Amino acid sequence: MDKILRIDMGAQGGPKATVEPVGQYAGMGGRGMTTMVVYKEVPADCHPLGPENKLVISPGLMSGSAAASSGRISVGCKSPLTGTIKEANAGGTAAQALARLGYAAVILEGEGKGEDLYKVVINDAGVQIQKADDLKMLPNYDLIEKLKPVHGDKVSVISIGTAGEMRMASSSIAVTDPEFRPTRHCGRGGVGAVMGSKGIKCIVVDASTTKMRQPARPDEFKEANRKFVEGLKQHAVTGQGLPTFGTNVLTNILNEAGGYPTYNFKQGRFDGGQNLSGELQAENMKNRPGGQPTHGCHRGCVIQCSGIYTDKDGNYMSKQPEYETVWSHGGNCGIDDLDAIAKLDYLDDNYGVDTIEMGVAIGVAMEAGVIPFGDAEGAINLVHEVGKGTHLGRILGAGAAVTAKCYGLEHAPVVKGQAMPAYDPRAVKGIGVTYATTTQGADHTAGYAVATNILNVGGSVDPLKPEGQAELSRNLQIATAALDATGFCLFIAFAILDQPETFNAMVDTINHMYGLNMTGDDVVALGQKILKMEREFNEKAGFGPAHDRLPRYFSREPLAPHNVVFDVSDMELDSVYNF
Amino acid sequence: MDKILRIDMGAQGGPKATVEPVGQYAGMGGRGMTTMVVYKEVPADCHPLGPENKLVISPGLMSGSAAASSGRISVGCKSPLTGTIKEANAGGTAAQALARLGYAAVILEGEGKGEDLYKVVINDAGVQIQKADDLKMLPNYDLIEKLKPVHGDKVSVISIGTAGEMRMASSSIAVTDPEFRPTRHCGRGGVGAVMGSKGIKCIVVDASTTKMRQPARPDEFKEANRKFVEGLKQHAVTGQGLPTFGTNVLTNILNEAGGYPTYNFKQGRFDGGQNLSGELQAENMKNRPGGQPTHGCHRGCVIQCSGIYTDKDGNYMSKQPEYETVWSHGGNCGIDDLDAIAKLDYLDDNYGVDTIEMGVAIGVAMEAGVIPFGDAEGAINLVHEVGKGTHLGRILGAGAAVTAKCYGLEHAPVVKGQAMPAYDPRAVKGIGVTYATTTQGADHTAGYAVATNILNVGGSVDPLKPEGQAELSRNLQIATAALDATGFCLFIAFAILDQPETFNAMVDTINHMYGLNMTGDDVVALGQKILKMEREFNEKAGFGPAHDRLPRYFSREPLAPHNVVFDVSDMELDSVYNF
Repeated sequence: MDKILRIDMGAQGGPKATVEPVGQYAGMGGRGMTTMVVYKEVPADCHPLGPENKLVISPGLMSGSAAASSGRISVGCKSPLTGTIKEANAGGTAAQALARLGYAAVILEGEGKGEDLYKVVINDAGVQIQKADDLKMLPNYDLIEKLKPVHGDKVSVISIGTAGEMRMASSSIAVTDPEFRPTRHCGRGGVGAVMGSKGIKCIVVDASTTKMRQPARPDEFKEANRKFVEGLKQHAVTGQGLPTFGTNVLTNILNEAGGYPTYNFKQGRFDGGQNLSGELQAENMKNRPGGQPTHGCHRGCVIQCSGIYTDKDGNYMSKQPEYETVWSHGGNCGIDDLDAIAKLDYLDDNYGVDTIEMGVAIGVAMEAGVIPFGDAEGAINLVHEVGKGTHLGRILGAGAAVTAKCYGLEHAPVVKGQAMPAYDPRAVKGIGVTYATTTQGADHTAGYAVATNILNVGGSVDPLKPEGQAELSRNLQIATAALDATGFCLFIAFAILDQPETFNAMVDTINHMYGLNMTGDDVVALGQKILKMEREFNEKAGFGPAHDRLPRYFSREPLAPHNVVFDVSDMELDSVYNF
Repeated sequence: MDKILRIDMGAQGGPKATVEPVGQYAGMGGRGMTTMVVYKEVPADCHPLGPENKLVISPGLMSGSAAASSGRISVGCKSPLTGTIKEANAGGTAAQALARLGYAAVILEGEGKGEDLYKVVINDAGVQIQKADDLKMLPNYDLIEKLKPVHGDKVSVISIGTAGEMRMASSSIAVTDPEFRPTRHCGRGGVGAVMGSKGIKCIVVDASTTKMRQPARPDEFKEANRKFVEGLKQHAVTGQGLPTFGTNVLTNILNEAGGYPTYNFKQGRFDGGQNLSGELQAENMKNRPGGQPTHGCHRGCVIQCSGIYTDKDGNYMSKQPEYETVWSHGGNCGIDDLDAIAKLDYLDDNYGVDTIEMGVAIGVAMEAGVIPFGDAEGAINLVHEVGKGTHLGRILGAGAAVTAKCYGLEHAPVVKGQAMPAYDPRAVKGIGVTYATTTQGADHTAGYAVATNILNVGGSVDPLKPEGQAELSRNLQIATAALDATGFCLFIAFAILDQPETFNAMVDTINHMYGLNMTGDDVVALGQKILKMEREFNEKAGFGPAHDRLPRYFSREPLAPHNVVFDVSDMELDSVYNF
């Protein structure tokens, strides 16, 4: 991972690929890389869809190595959804492929001329940029089918669906999984629209001729990784909950906690919750032909939280929908049908939109009366509207904030224009602090205080009280920023927060991979450095304390069943970045 | 004008009217009043359509007196379009009626309960708030027809059309003219949506039993007003250009200057410009039965820039469309048909949308390929979509910025979410400074540097050079804020900028009306005070220097025919509020 690939779509004579040494970005990977490149090279006041924006794709520092669960890939840019800096990451196989080919980053830059669409092919012979107008407006699954005869099914593909081509602010970037399906998505912030604005439909990465990246200190690395895996297997969340039930194990937990946003964040508990549970979902996958409840989204994953979801006849429906997807299309829309949700998940992946943004936008549209709450068929039709780019689809595809603006509603559950995920900030106040203050717009993954508020991981902070939430969120945001640079899956956090020896083993894998002697303090310093760059970018882009707030109605309208409002003070919120 | 009427839509037991003394707001009127009330009473971080926002309606300080051209009415609130503080003003007869009844302001506050729509009736017997669900979704002209049998045609009506009821961010508030037509609009910033969010369809003001407001020093007042009128009559713009051709006299001038934004701000000159000229428009109104090219929008106007536009058979089409309307629906959309534009103007007034925002949103939609440039019938259909609230109409009705976001375009000619008016900031750089820095979002009326850049009124500053534009805009913004408080029409500025004796006469009318001894310095101080309140509100709402900018493409893409970009430096822009 000592080189960077730049693809300049605005070059004289047509798109041009240049490979250069990693240079000033040495030692960065994942979110560390995407953030540093955007921070240094993208004017904060540029338009996200204009020629000055760049899309940075970067495998994590450990991707392509034998370290467990290290296959995350980050994309970064200025976000068309929020106007902030953005990093979104996914699993799938592309991080490992790019890393094994030696690329620390791929940077898409400049402005496409004309209407042509391009395919980029990367292998050990070099880089090709090919006109690919025959791929125009193909949804992701169809695209993969079309690529298969040309490239086989052992390559990795990074692609956009129709939403990205239409430059929708909810569009995602898909990454293929081990079954060569486009199921893993860098979902948030409209990153697909930036790829679309560059005129690039897909990047095919062929690392079949390459070997796994070798550690600097092989024996020590192996031992550290063994301890790390042991720790992951031993923790209740990463060793049992996630493998058995997937992330959707959270439905019952959040519903019980009264923090499950229902009917567009109207109440904190959904009567139909039991029909959406991870337990039921896992039963379906276990009992139905072709179903698979325990599955890794990339090779080398030991947590195996993903799965394959089939219908009763064994026909593939989608990958196992995540908790946030089950929630956004489920309780948030008053829908309690897991099969309908699997269909929605498939459509989201196929058209290439963020499942959270889409579900919340539909919830807002339901409150506006476009279709009634609970109407699963109607919701499916709405996602088709998005994928086809009808006028209604253009509204929803622009995200929840724009949907609320178009229909004149105050009830837009967003921060910095990005939809809130599956945890009501009134009943899980720590995550509310993260929503308000993260550099990314409302994002649970940026500082997952749910762990400590609800799951008692990494300590325990009462979710219903404002005390201690700012400090909790701060520490988690810092740790997450660092983790997002490594390529390790965020879910390892459950184990490393609770088990110091697992944290140390994780740090040791990095040290032995790179021949370093980092300590926990260095990890914290890396996280802080990333956050400070992101924060500075956002400040230049016009974001300040007034934007680090939840919409006022979360402080005004109490949430049943606990009848709580969001009451973490502005002063506390403004203290999050005191480091 | 010593009392304030508050209408609390959220009061226990239903909407409640309270009349109170003007108190802390004494001496304020028009924009001074609306800004001070919003500044003091509306939380800057509230949602514009939520219960914390207020709609403040205030006649100018001189409204209802015999002072010439003093019939402007201001409305203010936090804007649903921009998120900034907002003041929009109009002519028509309501300012005089409210002032004669003694109301310095009407404040609509709280949140309507349920779905009911209300009518407010104000006369010398008091205030009535009546359920009026039979008025639901009536366009403005239809509404007026329905009110006529009940209230006669001597009252004044302040109303919203269907767009305001649908809480669209482009919706206006209509004010009836002397012919009892809903033609004068507080257009900008979505003020109609705030009225709609309060559940108030219209305010009927009956001042038929009242007398003109009497000056403190009658003889001196009369003499000052005589000199003031003399000055207005004598200046070329207010005495000849505006009465003869209306504001649309500017089409030929701006087109000649290369500052006429054409095809969604793609170029600065429109080939079809001569078909849109004020000269041709005036000919139509002179030659057609029922047409009237010289007409006042309120009694006591001596400039008479408005008019009545009929078709060839003498059927009423609309009031004489303003220059900005002729431009937004005309050259900006590649349309060169004055009759089609009169139709569009009528529809905008009828549904109650800002003609600038609507025309620019349609121009953006044309660039997005929704309909082709030049398609007048298509544009008419699009306004119907808005008025009916179809999904496409919801996009356009949310304004130009949202339209661009929905269709994934960089080319959104907006500042702070509000569409730029009829002057390209690259070729008229002074107005570019105003667009960037005013507290209102892109707004030519907030500091009309076109006067000095193009018309050589109030001096002369080269429109194509960056030098001197910040100072010019600063001085005009201050003067305008003060003028907007008086109720005098902004167009008196042409005369008072060029003729010191006319400025003095204007100040004297105020002094003799109120028994004061203000000087020019006091006028400046008033303007500065208003701007500082607005600016402070915006800062609390999250606006800073990064928002006082034009979109980057105005600095990147040169404008033909002069091939100029916007090159006033950020430092200059940031100096505008140095006072």
